[in-house]
Parts: sequence; C-alpha cells; structure tokens
Amino acid sequence: MPLIVQKYGGSSVATSEKLRHVAERVRETRGTGADMVVVVSAPGDMTDDLIARAREITPTPPARELDMLMAVGEQVSIALLSMCLHTLGEEAISLTGSQVRILTDGVHTKARVLEVDRRRLDEELARGRIVVVAGFQGVTPDHEITTLGRGGSDLSAVALASALGAEACEIYTDVNGVYTADPRIVPEAQKLDRLSYDEMLEMASSGAVVLQTRSVEYAKSYGVRLHVRSTWAREAGTIVEEAPEVERNRLVTGVTHDTDVARMTISNVPDLPGIAHRLFSAMADRHINVDMIVQTASRDGRADISFTCTKADAAGAQEAIRAVTREIGSGDVTAAEGVAKVSIVGAGMASHPGVAASMFGALAAAGINIQMISTSEIKVSCIVSSEDVQKAVRAVHRAFNLDALR
Amino acid sequence: MPLIVQKYGGSSVATSEKLRHVAERVRETRGTGADMVVVVSAPGDMTDDLIARAREITPTPPARELDMLMAVGEQVSIALLSMCLHTLGEEAISLTGSQVRILTDGVHTKARVLEVDRRRLDEELARGRIVVVAGFQGVTPDHEITTLGRGGSDLSAVALASALGAEACEIYTDVNGVYTADPRIVPEAQKLDRLSYDEMLEMASSGAVVLQTRSVEYAKSYGVRLHVRSTWAREAGTIVEEAPEVERNRLVTGVTHDTDVARMTISNVPDLPGIAHRLFSAMADRHINVDMIVQTASRDGRADISFTCTKADAAGAQEAIRAVTREIGSGDVTAAEGVAKVSIVGAGMASHPGVAASMFGALAAAGINIQMISTSEIKVSCIVSSEDVQKAVRAVHRAFNLDALR
Repeated sequence: MPLIVQKYGGSSVATSEKLRHVAERVRETRGTGADMVVVVSAPGDMTDDLIARAREITPTPPARELDMLMAVGEQVSIALLSMCLHTLGEEAISLTGSQVRILTDGVHTKARVLEVDRRRLDEELARGRIVVVAGFQGVTPDHEITTLGRGGSDLSAVALASALGAEACEIYTDVNGVYTADPRIVPEAQKLDRLSYDEMLEMASSGAVVLQTRSVEYAKSYGVRLHVRSTWAREAGTIVEEAPEVERNRLVTGVTHDTDVARMTISNVPDLPGIAHRLFSAMADRHINVDMIVQTASRDGRADISFTCTKADAAGAQEAIRAVTREIGSGDVTAAEGVAKVSIVGAGMASHPGVAASMFGALAAAGINIQMISTSEIKVSCIVSSEDVQKAVRAVHRAFNLDALR
Repeated sequence: MPLIVQKYGGSSVATSEKLRHVAERVRETRGTGADMVVVVSAPGDMTDDLIARAREITPTPPARELDMLMAVGEQVSIALLSMCLHTLGEEAISLTGSQVRILTDGVHTKARVLEVDRRRLDEELARGRIVVVAGFQGVTPDHEITTLGRGGSDLSAVALASALGAEACEIYTDVNGVYTADPRIVPEAQKLDRLSYDEMLEMASSGAVVLQTRSVEYAKSYGVRLHVRSTWAREAGTIVEEAPEVERNRLVTGVTHDTDVARMTISNVPDLPGIAHRLFSAMADRHINVDMIVQTASRDGRADISFTCTKADAAGAQEAIRAVTREIGSGDVTAAEGVAKVSIVGAGMASHPGVAASMFGALAAAGINIQMISTSEIKVSCIVSSEDVQKAVRAVHRAFNLDALR
C-alpha cells in the first residue's frame, strides 16, 4: 500500500468544524487504500497564546521550559483530530513527538531533527491505523521535549515522509499553492504548478510564508517531493521538487516581499581587515540573523556599513554593535524602520544577465527609491520604503510578465 | 536533607500572579534546606475546557485520546511554575508523568499507579534542582499517556511521597484544612487538626471535596502522612494519618453533604435470588458507581429497590436497568432529582450505639423528611430533599456539638 503523509496547519485545525473537515479529507485519501500519517500544528493562535502566558511571567523564559509549554498545542490537535476520525469510523491513534521518537538535538526552541524512529509508526500502520502525529515537536535521546522552530510542523512532515519513504508529502494550508506574488497585493498573481527546491528556498527566506525554510532544506537534502495545496479546495497545488528543466525555462519565478525588516547603519567604520568580522560575529554570538549587508566604498579610510535584520532583533543588534563600536572606534549605529524588502526569485536568472537591471528599471519607472540592493545566484532583493512596498511588488510583477504565466 | 513533596491545586496556579505566589512558598520551604518535589494540577478550569472541546466533537471520545488531551493542562502548569522559580533564581526543572515514569495500568481516564520510577527524580534532586512534576498523569510501560481520574494530582503527590520516602506530603488548597462541615453552610464549622485515614475516606466519599478518595486509600496503604493546608495562609492545616486514639475520642468527626445525587427507584422487583445481582452488574458493566442501595420489604413476592448515583450517571443507569427489567419482568425505573445526601462520619460511632438515632432525631426536630438511609461502621447517610440540605447540615452539626469542638 502506498504511504501518504499529510500535514495540516494551525488555521486548518482551529475549530471543531474545521477539524471535522480535515478528518473528512483524511478519510477520503484513506479510502483510496493508502496508509496514512497525518501531521498537525497547534490550533489557531494557541502557540502564540502560550508564549504570551510565558512572557507574563518573564521576558526571558528558559528555552527548555518554553518547549515544555509550547509542545502542548500540537498535543491538543492530535487528540481532537483522532476523536474526529473515530466519529467517522476510522481507526486512528495520536502520537506525540516523544512517542514516535522524532529524535532531535538538545537546542531548545530550534532543535534539529537527527533521526525518526520508524518502529512505533510501522507498528501502528501495520495495525491498519491512521497515525496522527504532533508536528513541531521532537525529543532528545535523554527524553527532553524539544520544538523545531516557527513553522516546524512542515519539517516534522518532511522528516516523517523521508523516514517512511512516503509516496507523497502533502502540505495543506489556507492558500492553493505558491504564487508568483502575494495575491492580496497582486490580484493577477498566478499559482505556480511546479517549483524547484532552490526557488522555494529563496522565496521562503525572502517573505513567502507558505513553507518553513528549514523544511525545504530538509526536503531538498533527502529528495522529498512536496505538494503544497489548500485544505479547502480540490484542485492540485504547487509541487516543489528537483526540477532543472523548469528552472532553465523560467527567468523570474515570483516576486516576494517582507515587511518585517529593520535597516541598521554603522557610520565611519575604519576600513581595516577584520572589522566586519568583529561586528558580525558580535551579532552571531547573540543568534541574530543578519540578512542583507552593504558596505559603501571607503572614503578617507572610513566606510558606512548597512545591514538588515528582523524588527524583533533590531534592539539586540544595536546592543551587540555598540559594544564593538567602542572598541573599534567607529561612529554610532542607527536603526531605520519603515522599510521593506522586495525580491525577485528565479533559477533562470543565473544564466540571463540584465534581470537585476530590469527590476531596478521597473522600480524607477514607478518612482520608487531603492535604499539597498543585494543579489544572489537566483535572487535580487531591494530595500524600499514600506509605503512603497505594494506599488513595488505590482510594478515588478508586471515588468516580468508574471500575470501572463503558464 | 529532608525531602518534602508539595501539591498545589488548579485554583492555586490559575493565573501568573497566583503562580508567583506558589513559587514564593516553594522557595521558602526550599530555603529551610529541604529537597523539593512540587506537584501541580492544570490551571483553573483548563481540564474542564478541554473536555468541553472534546465533547464538541463527540459525546463519547475514546478514553485514550481523552487522556492525550487532558494531560496537556498539567504540562502547562509545570512549565509556567518552573519559569516562575527561575525568575526567583531557583534551579527548577519540570517533568511530565512520562518523563518521571509514573507507571500506571492502561485503564485510561482512571488509571492506577503501579510504580514510580525514582531514577530521574533522584538525578535531578542530586543536581540540587527543585523538581516540578505534572500531577494527574502517568504513563504505561508501553509509553501510553494515562490520567488518574478527577483530583488525580493528589494521588500523584502521595505516590511520589511514598516512592521517595518523603518527610512530608503537603496538599495545598483553597481552604485551611478539613472542616467539621462546609464553612459556607455552617459558619461555626471547626477546622479539624487531625483525622484518621478512614474518617477522611468516608468524608471524601460522602461529599467533602478536599482530597481525592483514591489518594487517601493510597496514603493509608503506604502510610503517607498528609498535611492538607491553605496556599494562601500560614497556619497549619489538617493532618491525615493513622490515629487510633483520635478516633476513639471522637463520636462524630464531621457532617458532609453531596448535592450531586440522583435517586432511582425500580418498582415491583420480583423477590427472587439473583435479581439484585443482575440489576447491579448491568450497571457495573457500564462503570456506573452506585452509592446507597435500599430495598423495601417484600409484599406479595415483589419489592421496590432504590439506589443513588451521580446525576451524570443517571441516564446511563436507567438504560442499563431497562435492559434488565424487561428480562426479569419488574416495573419501570424512575429517577428523582432534587435530592441530596447528608452524612455524619466518625470512627468513634462504631462503639457508641445511638449515634444514628440522634441524627434522625435532629432531622426530625428540624422538620426534615428522610427519604433513604444507609449506614456503615463509621458513617450514617440520609437522603433528603435538596431544598433541605443546608438546614439539615446545620441541624446535625449543632446536634453533635461540633461547633464547640477542640
């Protein structure tokens, strides 16, 4: 019998009615004769509510205890979904990450999956049961409960699909798939039928929230083909897989945007070897993820360095840098909010010069000022004023003819 | 170092402020140099809320999945209390029932404790940590999550105290201890300083909700001395222990009442051997707990049988009986609500005749009609109209001079 892994996100299991709908969909797939493992997230806002309760007690809860707390959300979902499946006459059993033994390292709140133990899963599947597994959570070899970071249920699904050699790994969400741009901003945005892992990675890391970045990395490493589709619709969604021919044929795959951006500038940095290293390791030590980095040309042995990070990390980044600016004798660091990032992603652009220039042209034609630029093999990102972000996404989407895709 | 087990109930951990207060109390005891294991219940109404969510899906959720669901409440409490202790600078670690390995049988929603594994507890205590353990939950040898029934956190505390040979087992609650009657009904009710296990058992099973009945049985079996006291006050509470001299000196220890009572009557039951057995095993098969049973004298080979059960069990009891009445050819079963049970408990009454008569006299003098009577070695219970319950408790309390106790 083929084995199918399905993952349902938090909004798909937020209410009893939605859970019943999910159970019906699971039952339908089950009816085709497939063995099934279903991964679920915590219902609705439960994880955020739990984190808020922790913050009522302390702004810095110990990570181990935060994991103990956050893990309950998914446990609620698996129990309720199992009950729904029982009411439909299906044999189902819920299992926590600990019960499955989704083994992780001990880095609480962002643990890495080391191994998935197949034994309990195989046992339950052999009994003909639908296995409902708590996403987002794992367990260390010492029985400590861990969680896999924001969106970690995607990773749970991919890891389970890989360990079990599943036929399909379906990620159910509120949207029909991955789009060329956010349809709320660009009504003409087109659903993509296929996407390569690398394209999906760049899109996820530049603002498309449909899949957790790490789950895509894992899927790529282990060759797990993903199907991103809607909980509420029948149509096929977007396939994410190794797809060299797709990549070649497409210049630009999509336009993404991210408004959770703070731009920081350090002025008058001495232009000496090792200075950048000291600045950015100070931030790495604090686990601050720096995204774009731009250094101006040196003038009188001094340069300005700008970088971006999330708004939540801005204060920490400032602190980290101020400790170092004193040592290296640079000017102060200033933070600018009110900025956003607009990116184009496309595996084809590596072999097509002029793609970045076309993007800059589209933005200029729309009267939008570019504050920072960074490019990779398959991505170009521009920082613009957050007031301009919708206009920018639409202009770029139009410039690359993405509304005419297919 | 002495080891102290403390248990805090749901209302003691319902809010962040209350949790902070509990953490302060734990810290204080810790400050005396004691090793500490702290057992907590789910916050406030969380368990009821979770059960309500399950009932939204199905009136009869599978017991295994209900346990999976209900166990999350205590997991929330242990994580939050641990965080509170950390903010006070205490080294604390939370452990689920599975992590401790509080081993139980597999009877979901009312599992029995088989054994408590000391290893992880000893390890954490040896590291100087305060161990915060989730009450109410256990795990089977097959890693299935179980719960110990309503009020099961009391049992968790007693089982841990017994396994670890604790110096003291303190049960913290909203009241100052065990009273001669419910102080909300009898303002003159007196706190009892000491109580025997058997008295506590009879009081718990006849309506005093301060301790779970099974936890008292367990404490009696393993000789665990309990101290029931208030989370919010300093004064000593009530000690529950083996206390023969206390028992002898006290005729009546307390008056309890229970309004969660339904009275069922089966009319015209053939007065033949085996009939009662068939009726009551039909209910036992459905796990319906029958409390008082009274059979009238036979008239023309027929008798009426009345019994009481909880209101929640009334419908199930009726169904169970109707299946049998058809077979045995008795009359129908009728259910009367609007009744309540008033009991007196006292180990001394076994050797003092006339105690029951005094109770009946007190009720008669107050103009209260008795609908059913049942007696045990150390308890007399009367069913009265629920309208009369407060008057009945006050009259009996006064008759036995309990307001003048000490």
